[in-house]
Amino acid sequence: MAYREKNMDWRSPCPISSALDVLGDKWSLLIIRDLIIHGPRTYSQFLDAPERISTNILASRLELLACLKLIERTSPEAASRNNAYHLTESGAALRPTLEALGKWAGSHLSDLHVDILKM
Amino acid sequence: MAYREKNMDWRSPCPISSALDVLGDKWSLLIIRDLIIHGPRTYSQFLDAPERISTNILASRLELLACLKLIERTSPEAASRNNAYHLTESGAALRPTLEALGKWAGSHLSDLHVDILKM
Repeated sequence: MAYREKNMDWRSPCPISSALDVLGDKWSLLIIRDLIIHGPRTYSQFLDAPERISTNILASRLELLACLKLIERTSPEAASRNNAYHLTESGAALRPTLEALGKWAGSHLSDLHVDILKM
Repeated sequence: MAYREKNMDWRSPCPISSALDVLGDKWSLLIIRDLIIHGPRTYSQFLDAPERISTNILASRLELLACLKLIERTSPEAASRNNAYHLTESGAALRPTLEALGKWAGSHLSDLHVDILKM
């Protein structure tokens, strides 16, 4: 899927909203998580994560994250699926956000005895 | 929409993934943002946010966040749409995550000269 040109005027002036416009998706943030925890990862290694991302979602999110310059192919000239991806400086800068989210979940999600619809 | 009972075994052991299972959605986090910034908010006030959440998504996310005990109605006995919602302790504990996300966006999103598909 190609990400087409879009006037950016639709973006909210709020930086949190702007961040969620591009990252408000479970799978994008789990790809960033894998790269923060494990370092460079191949397409196949992303598929092996316990959350079982589907191939079409993985391909779409890798393209989006590369378009946003949050990840890069380790060897730009090689487009094979066994090529690895790594974080750019902007992608790596998401570490404090994910650490805060993980800390919150560790402290608060385990206490939630709720019925959740898996979305 | 009622959130039906669900066995929680599908949840990943990773706390970040567990958090994203319930919050990996732009609109849920924007509702939390509004409550952190403004304090208690009514249904109508959420609709007035610059991101223009739709009424059906707002109703669905308010129900989910209340089910998760991240927000509560200020007056539980009154179910009118003018009733206000406020954060619980668990919801308010998301402040460091949103602050980290906003800080990241302020530093890194403005540098991105990319074409993004509004999803």
